[in-house]
Amino acid sequence: MIKIAVDAMGGDNAPGEIVKGAVDAVTERKDITVCLTGQKDVIEKELSKYTYKIEQIEIVDAPEVIETGEPPVNAIRKKKNSSLVVGLNLVKNGEADGFVSAGSSGAVLVGGQVIVGRVKGVERPPLAPLIPTEKGVSLLIDCGANVDARPSHLVQFAQMGSLYMKYVMGIENPRVAIVNIGVEEEKGNALVKETFPLLKECKNINFIGSIEAREIPHGGADVIVCEAFVGNVILKLYEGVGATMMTMVKKGLMSNLRSKIGALLIKPALKSTLKSFDASQYGGAPLLGLKGLVVKTHGSSKAKEVKNSIIQCISFKENEISDKIKGCLAPEETEA
Amino acid sequence: MIKIAVDAMGGDNAPGEIVKGAVDAVTERKDITVCLTGQKDVIEKELSKYTYKIEQIEIVDAPEVIETGEPPVNAIRKKKNSSLVVGLNLVKNGEADGFVSAGSSGAVLVGGQVIVGRVKGVERPPLAPLIPTEKGVSLLIDCGANVDARPSHLVQFAQMGSLYMKYVMGIENPRVAIVNIGVEEEKGNALVKETFPLLKECKNINFIGSIEAREIPHGGADVIVCEAFVGNVILKLYEGVGATMMTMVKKGLMSNLRSKIGALLIKPALKSTLKSFDASQYGGAPLLGLKGLVVKTHGSSKAKEVKNSIIQCISFKENEISDKIKGCLAPEETEA
Repeated sequence: MIKIAVDAMGGDNAPGEIVKGAVDAVTERKDITVCLTGQKDVIEKELSKYTYKIEQIEIVDAPEVIETGEPPVNAIRKKKNSSLVVGLNLVKNGEADGFVSAGSSGAVLVGGQVIVGRVKGVERPPLAPLIPTEKGVSLLIDCGANVDARPSHLVQFAQMGSLYMKYVMGIENPRVAIVNIGVEEEKGNALVKETFPLLKECKNINFIGSIEAREIPHGGADVIVCEAFVGNVILKLYEGVGATMMTMVKKGLMSNLRSKIGALLIKPALKSTLKSFDASQYGGAPLLGLKGLVVKTHGSSKAKEVKNSIIQCISFKENEISDKIKGCLAPEETEA
Repeated sequence: MIKIAVDAMGGDNAPGEIVKGAVDAVTERKDITVCLTGQKDVIEKELSKYTYKIEQIEIVDAPEVIETGEPPVNAIRKKKNSSLVVGLNLVKNGEADGFVSAGSSGAVLVGGQVIVGRVKGVERPPLAPLIPTEKGVSLLIDCGANVDARPSHLVQFAQMGSLYMKYVMGIENPRVAIVNIGVEEEKGNALVKETFPLLKECKNINFIGSIEAREIPHGGADVIVCEAFVGNVILKLYEGVGATMMTMVKKGLMSNLRSKIGALLIKPALKSTLKSFDASQYGGAPLLGLKGLVVKTHGSSKAKEVKNSIIQCISFKENEISDKIKGCLAPEETEA
């Protein structure tokens, strides 16, 4: 029985959508237990709205709440009884196999490193969301809060990302590319130029070279390697351009009667297309390279994204990704 | 009479679309002359297809052609009789007020700096395209080939970008923001953290703080400051996400009869919406901070973009942007 801890108090739609997502997850998968961390009375009230197998959902009381905007290091240090710190400790102590939170990114990233801790050999744990493409999804690694990465970090991101795409997403021999401003080998900034030959030499990945940002949405690579500043820009611009184009298309369709009628006819097809290009379909972003699994879901996550993030944890656990990362990055430690 | 030199041989659709764009420009504006640089016989053959006022178009023969992928520095040095080098020399010698090219970015950027030369006080000339937003357009500065910028470069980009948006685009007190991974002042990489206080102190710009990539398409600022690597990622991802979404929407609309009929009805409205979100509407990207005006248009430019780029040069010249940049960045030199 796999047990996933879930931060019931984190995110814009907590606790309502988080609790609903947990109920949906245990309804779909009879082989898991969800452990909700947060204010007990609040969670109980939400749970009372649903029917579910009582032994599949536990509550661990955590009266303190970390606010958005609270400095992450302080929050982690001072609020020992917050839903986030309690949840991370469940993973640390082996009482849960994974932890999902829609709370403050900074606090999740800091807490994951400080409380759960890094796998031996991992220099920096990257946050790696799946982004939609024309061909399916790609892993964008890193989008975390630690900027100004070194070349050795990027090489590890490529390795961890490859393991994730292979074992969790089922992509054989995933194509790894580094984000660059041109495809020629001599192009790039200092970081990319230094990293490129290291990736080329790296034996355990399928490195296909540079990728220009234009090719990312076309599905030009399975693992998109970049440092966190660039990754953050890519992730947020993806959202921004998508949202703006849709707003403009919808506004355009309301401009006259003819297109209004057309809009009614295309609505179902348009909706299903947009759904396939919606990042929330694919669950949260794992913080890779930690001793246990920590998944950060979007702050605005609704029940569906929470459920998908929980279910994502199952294959992560079943495939023992953390062990595989350790085996790849610190093989001597594993053998010892 | 303003005279604009145009590289008739540069770009994917040269010389046909370039020559057509030049003819369209002189048809629209009777107060300009266009000087086409390139292989004389080829240009004459293209021109023979159109009717226009003969004194408004000149040809300067330039038999050599710079190929895409040719190392820029070599190309500029060796091909003195290429359409690019000849055109840039016209600007340098004051025989033309501006130069438009859809040719190799690298060669245009290198040639602009080496041949035309920087305005006194300018440390690095940025390439600054206009990008479409929900509210109109914003200037993305820098998207050039010189990466790993210093904070002082970014401050100059902010100043030059403000002058451009004010005098060429007519935006009073343009809002300047720096691309960042959060809006809080303590966020960012080393470059952004060092640049932020300098922009805050800068008296001649309207600095509004950090902008997250998500807000760029919403029109969150008029001048978007970043170093060229990030700028390049933003520019190309803009194109990529837009193109992918439209491909997916169109494919979705063809999925059943109902939406096929709807698609026919919405086609005109959809087309005009997409047009307003198409970067080519707004002409090319000026290379700012040079002694004369050099404009790089997209390699795939068609006649319309070429025409718009030529017309953009007129307001640049009329408003004496290069002098204003000199006055802003090296005031003592101007007074001397």
